[in-house]
Amino acid sequence: MSDATKDDLLQKPISRRDMLKLGAAGGVGLLLGAGGLTGVLAGTGMLKDSAKAADAQTAGDTVPFYGKHQAGIVTPAQDFICLGAFDVTTTDLGALRTLFQKWTEASAKLAQGQGVGDESGNPILPPVDTGEAMGLNAAGITITFGVGASLFDGRFGLGSKRPAALVDLPAFGGDELQPEWTGGDIAVQVCANDPQVAFHALRNLARIARGKAVLRWVQDGFQRTRTADPNGSTPRNLLGFKDGTNNPDVKKADVADDIVWATQADGANWMADGTYMIMRRIRMRIEVWDRTHLNEQEATFGRHRDSGAPLGEKDEFAPLDFAKQDDKGKLMIPMNSHVAVANMGGKVKIHRRGYSYSSGIDLKTGQLDAGLLFICFNRDPRRQFIPMQQALAAQDKLNEYIVHVGSAIFAVLPGAKAGGCIGETLF
Amino acid sequence: MSDATKDDLLQKPISRRDMLKLGAAGGVGLLLGAGGLTGVLAGTGMLKDSAKAADAQTAGDTVPFYGKHQAGIVTPAQDFICLGAFDVTTTDLGALRTLFQKWTEASAKLAQGQGVGDESGNPILPPVDTGEAMGLNAAGITITFGVGASLFDGRFGLGSKRPAALVDLPAFGGDELQPEWTGGDIAVQVCANDPQVAFHALRNLARIARGKAVLRWVQDGFQRTRTADPNGSTPRNLLGFKDGTNNPDVKKADVADDIVWATQADGANWMADGTYMIMRRIRMRIEVWDRTHLNEQEATFGRHRDSGAPLGEKDEFAPLDFAKQDDKGKLMIPMNSHVAVANMGGKVKIHRRGYSYSSGIDLKTGQLDAGLLFICFNRDPRRQFIPMQQALAAQDKLNEYIVHVGSAIFAVLPGAKAGGCIGETLF
Ligand code: HEM
Ligand code: HEM
Repeated sequence: MSDATKDDLLQKPISRRDMLKLGAAGGVGLLLGAGGLTGVLAGTGMLKDSAKAADAQTAGDTVPFYGKHQAGIVTPAQDFICLGAFDVTTTDLGALRTLFQKWTEASAKLAQGQGVGDESGNPILPPVDTGEAMGLNAAGITITFGVGASLFDGRFGLGSKRPAALVDLPAFGGDELQPEWTGGDIAVQVCANDPQVAFHALRNLARIARGKAVLRWVQDGFQRTRTADPNGSTPRNLLGFKDGTNNPDVKKADVADDIVWATQADGANWMADGTYMIMRRIRMRIEVWDRTHLNEQEATFGRHRDSGAPLGEKDEFAPLDFAKQDDKGKLMIPMNSHVAVANMGGKVKIHRRGYSYSSGIDLKTGQLDAGLLFICFNRDPRRQFIPMQQALAAQDKLNEYIVHVGSAIFAVLPGAKAGGCIGETLF
Repeated sequence: MSDATKDDLLQKPISRRDMLKLGAAGGVGLLLGAGGLTGVLAGTGMLKDSAKAADAQTAGDTVPFYGKHQAGIVTPAQDFICLGAFDVTTTDLGALRTLFQKWTEASAKLAQGQGVGDESGNPILPPVDTGEAMGLNAAGITITFGVGASLFDGRFGLGSKRPAALVDLPAFGGDELQPEWTGGDIAVQVCANDPQVAFHALRNLARIARGKAVLRWVQDGFQRTRTADPNGSTPRNLLGFKDGTNNPDVKKADVADDIVWATQADGANWMADGTYMIMRRIRMRIEVWDRTHLNEQEATFGRHRDSGAPLGEKDEFAPLDFAKQDDKGKLMIPMNSHVAVANMGGKVKIHRRGYSYSSGIDLKTGQLDAGLLFICFNRDPRRQFIPMQQALAAQDKLNEYIVHVGSAIFAVLPGAKAGGCIGETLF
């Protein structure tokens, strides 16, 4: 490899184009998926200053696609999401299997910051890749696949394989679900630190599905970017509060095992190392919230807006003390506050990984259609999400300011090893 | 100022919170708007390594709000846009004047990376600022105000002030305009390198307008981020082509004077140093495009997809030669290609500053509602945008793949000096 190429590599994150060159020049292109970019560069002696390069590349880096679990679940949340639900149009199980095979191969490439096919392509054919991410790096992209209960409805003879934990969600008090934001046979969650990279992936996966599955709904979401918050502090939701503070630390394997990863005992053999994802499109009554006093806002969540600390505390990460009283004997954290209800006595936990959404104006009301694209992962919704949401629907003070308009539940498939296929334990 | 504070400042871009602290500690908070952050730090001897800091802060930095022209027009395009059109509900000119006064003051704060009011606020009042950008830096935000022709309809006695250049756009062939994406009394364009920073600004400006103006439509847009493309090469649109290559270089004052800035001669005295903005929401027929051969795609634009170079050339920035023929005597760049038509013989130019948009699925067709939020600035639409769009509507091969579904034209007000008010020459 020429010195010029090495220098290039050191000065800027690697783009799709550089990768192709690198692959051609040194034959290492295909290795990049395995240990991430930094690993490969260090291994080939190409990193003069690996700390600096790692630092510069954090947000643009690659996240391995293959593994025991799918990526995008305990992966620290990227800045953007493009979440799509598909309806399967074929009734042929073989065709569905082929689709997942093609999706797996394409996703592995996308995860490496590559296009889904030869970039220049054959001029008298449609390009294999749609091209809008050419020249962009991987931007930490992850692609995560799940299947809905409707896939087990008999079309494919999979009925007996439906996991017990993949229940239909019950109706929750206050729900105003709209069919166009509800359900789906398959979920594809794309997260990345760049919205164009995320859109590109979902679009190309939809294209690969042509004749077999069509998009049912798509919702984009965002969190503050690393550009605006280089320290990566807890993001704020569109009600102005820090959101995610008391999320369980799923970077720890035992915590993830406890809360996120399904075992054979949780519903179905083939779901071991998978998980269950719940999506709720939760619209915020922004205009009502914005007329509410700060005291009332803080009582709604049970935390201070400014610091994110529990009411009466200074530190964002101070433990929640639901017995603590003020000098008049009143509970510091109201019993109907969002955190008090969601805490469930510390006994029920989920892993939240949501994004804000903003989708223009609602034509019916003339108000902003913005809110929370709530996403959580749990190993058994019957013991985790459902009782929690039942409690929230019944008691949460936040209900005055939100309304659930979309809902879906998916069995998120186990990961696949290189050479394997997402869904191989099911199909 | 303590050394700890200095070190903090050198290590990370300045957040809204830091600004407040900085203001309190050194009394320089209010200066920050004037010359941008780097300027102030250098001036106070606080920059040990100004080049490095400038580099790190480019995307998070402040852009001055006050000036001869409004920001966000010849400012290099940020990564995100949040574009809103308002309908004025008051019929009182005084109330409208007050609104612009309040918007000016709020925008100047937002441009400095601050909230629109005291962050902690009075606990028994609604917070002045909605809070979701707390802790984020300015992210290069610009806020740009324009007024539509409907504002001159007699409600405010401004009829005689309507600039001749603020015409109603004629109907263009192929238009399929939807009322919900068309028109508006006032446009507020917010651009920033972070979508949450942009959303926060538009939301707070909408809130300030309560009782005087309501949002009519809002469209978000994006370009590739600096995270995914640290070199900032020409962004690609969602058809996969580099978009903006042959935009006039409006960083040069004479080019901007020629193409962008209105003079007294262009329509109205009060519009001198303003400009005219056209918005077209252009939906792409993504699925049709994706089935089109690469050759055909390149012939549609007249440029190579991969490099962005004119057909037959290698370099993105090679000049367009519309006479050049291939060895069979065929024009290299087809006469009905987008660039050949849009070029207008080099005689008509506009300054394009658009963004991609992706708004989920169109419920009517089940296809992606994605495309180009086309925005351009020109000093006189009668001589620039309109004839160009007439030519494109008649001849552009691209028309097979796009449809204009929204449209608006605004007189973008001249800039204001610190202490002045946007709109002061009009109201
Ligand atoms: C728009 C709707 C919602 C908003 C704005 C919201 C916001 C918040 C905020 C600000 C916190 C405190 C900080 C933190 O620990 O993350 C929180 C905590 C939490 N929320 Fe939500 N949330 C929403 C919906 C939900 C839903 C639907 C669920 C689950 C059914 C949920 C479950 C939780 C849990 C488990 C906690 C942590 C409680 C604890 O500290 O033990 N939230 N949420
Ligand atoms: C979805 C719709 C559109 C797409 C995808 C699109 C895309 C492009 C692309 C890829 C180029 C070539 C690269 C460049 O110089 O930027 C270009 C050039 C251009 N476009 Fe468009 N465009 C669209 C609509 C429009 C409209 C509505 C106008 C104005 C009425 C316009 C005016 C121009 C001009 C003036 C050029 C430069 C031509 C030259 O080189 O002289 N475009 N456009």
